[in-house]
Amino acid sequence: MYDMSGDVLIEDEFLRDGLQNERRLFSIPEKLEFVTALEQAGVRRIQLGSFVHPKWVPQMADTDALFDAITPKPGVTYTALVLNKAGLDRALAVGVRHLSISISASETHSQKNTNRSIAEARAAIAPVIEKALSEGVIVRAGIQSALGCGFEGRIDPAHVIEIARFFADMGVHEINLADTAGLANPKQVYELATYLEGRIAPDLSLHLHDTRGMGMANMVAGLQAGVRIFDAALGGLGGCPFIPKATGNIATEDAAFACGELGLDTGIDWKALRPVVARAETLLDRVLPGRMGHVAPPPWDLSTGESV
Amino acid sequence: MYDMSGDVLIEDEFLRDGLQNERRLFSIPEKLEFVTALEQAGVRRIQLGSFVHPKWVPQMADTDALFDAITPKPGVTYTALVLNKAGLDRALAVGVRHLSISISASETHSQKNTNRSIAEARAAIAPVIEKALSEGVIVRAGIQSALGCGFEGRIDPAHVIEIARFFADMGVHEINLADTAGLANPKQVYELATYLEGRIAPDLSLHLHDTRGMGMANMVAGLQAGVRIFDAALGGLGGCPFIPKATGNIATEDAAFACGELGLDTGIDWKALRPVVARAETLLDRVLPGRMGHVAPPPWDLSTGESV
Repeated sequence: MYDMSGDVLIEDEFLRDGLQNERRLFSIPEKLEFVTALEQAGVRRIQLGSFVHPKWVPQMADTDALFDAITPKPGVTYTALVLNKAGLDRALAVGVRHLSISISASETHSQKNTNRSIAEARAAIAPVIEKALSEGVIVRAGIQSALGCGFEGRIDPAHVIEIARFFADMGVHEINLADTAGLANPKQVYELATYLEGRIAPDLSLHLHDTRGMGMANMVAGLQAGVRIFDAALGGLGGCPFIPKATGNIATEDAAFACGELGLDTGIDWKALRPVVARAETLLDRVLPGRMGHVAPPPWDLSTGESV
Repeated sequence: MYDMSGDVLIEDEFLRDGLQNERRLFSIPEKLEFVTALEQAGVRRIQLGSFVHPKWVPQMADTDALFDAITPKPGVTYTALVLNKAGLDRALAVGVRHLSISISASETHSQKNTNRSIAEARAAIAPVIEKALSEGVIVRAGIQSALGCGFEGRIDPAHVIEIARFFADMGVHEINLADTAGLANPKQVYELATYLEGRIAPDLSLHLHDTRGMGMANMVAGLQAGVRIFDAALGGLGGCPFIPKATGNIATEDAAFACGELGLDTGIDWKALRPVVARAETLLDRVLPGRMGHVAPPPWDLSTGESV
């Protein structure tokens, strides 16, 4: 049941899903400081921001400039979120080679977020994905609200599977199931991920929120289903900053620690993330929900398994 | 992997493991208020306190008076922690019928906590358990640091199994494995619990702390191993209040919600615990780490599984 092996890739989304809800705008030098710190801790995929309209998400207005400013480090993938053709054009203009392009599996969420039905969103996103692929970009196709919707409640897994097949048929490289509202449970994650792992060609990844306390349990269920790519955010940033203790993504440092404890290598030195969490907390002026940034490390050396 | 069934018993330890670390002393009327609220929410086992020396744990000095003050509700078990003969005598004097009696599986923890080796602690606790059993008390024998020790690190599971057998041979009714320092991981929980579930007669229960973000994942692993009794604390109280965001027990409201999502009945209406969490936060003057006391309920009715 827990005999697992392999490497786990953690995509850190502190700079996108984390910062996009924050009142405090981070400067390019501040964002670069986090990019460097994440790289140095061994994070191998970093979502730098999104190419969305700055009127709606001013925190992400400088994503173009951030891509221009980074010095890519070998072995690290720099990615961004794109939701339409205008965003793709901006991403291509600054040379982005890896993108998340997503639609929602919830009719209500789709309508409220984009003023489009799911069918309309699919029709609109198809040429965006085609163009990205034709430009040689690695495309991760995301399904928002894939494991529950804050408006509709349960989402029929058959419906999610159908969208995943649509993306797979287009030739995307990875399909990402997002628990946008943090409503998933481990049984549901295990069953849907197991089904898709066996039936679609692209890699499967999970984007999990810890809103209702099951983020880590859901990651473990994903691992049991064979998933080896997970989104996380430094400090567990994300969610709404106006709700006390509302928690967002699973924390990168916690996910890396948990994988290590389960015998899976993420390449991330979670202890190296502790000062980075502290720096984020200083800039955001609050304590973040991630655990391993705060508590004492366990009294053993993970690299040897020996007590120290 | 996640096809589980059965009822789950959650023992709430807000009044003991939660309050024992708090600077604020709760009065008997305040404690009774929480007992009543927990009862009304459907909690079927409540740990009211411990019979330890008031010099060391002044928060628990009124445990005798609290037992005297409660009006037992049918179907609810009121329990307490006892660590020696003096404690047992106090418990028996106020008519307690269910007790947790525990020792540590860590030599260092045992020495530091009780100034006794494990062998000495076993020799000392045996007559206490025997007397409790002879008085007709239901005895839960606890193994502290069973899944890791903050001083020693890993604890050899063979050693924990040996202590469990010692307790089982004495005829105790339940054996509780405590992750005292919050160091367990789901693989470890699953493997040890599975081993014991198949080999010892008493019920097995788990006492899990969320210190390193794996409390809920560890509960799920316990469920997968067949465990159906878990300790939790309202709001996730516990741990050291002097460490920012240090979290203690898994939260009763989160555990009940998670079990419900997995199709397991706890008898607890977690929504009824939301105002109780709010009351605890008012008295403690801080936000508690449990999630379901704060976030919006999911947009479906758990009793029917239908979206609402």
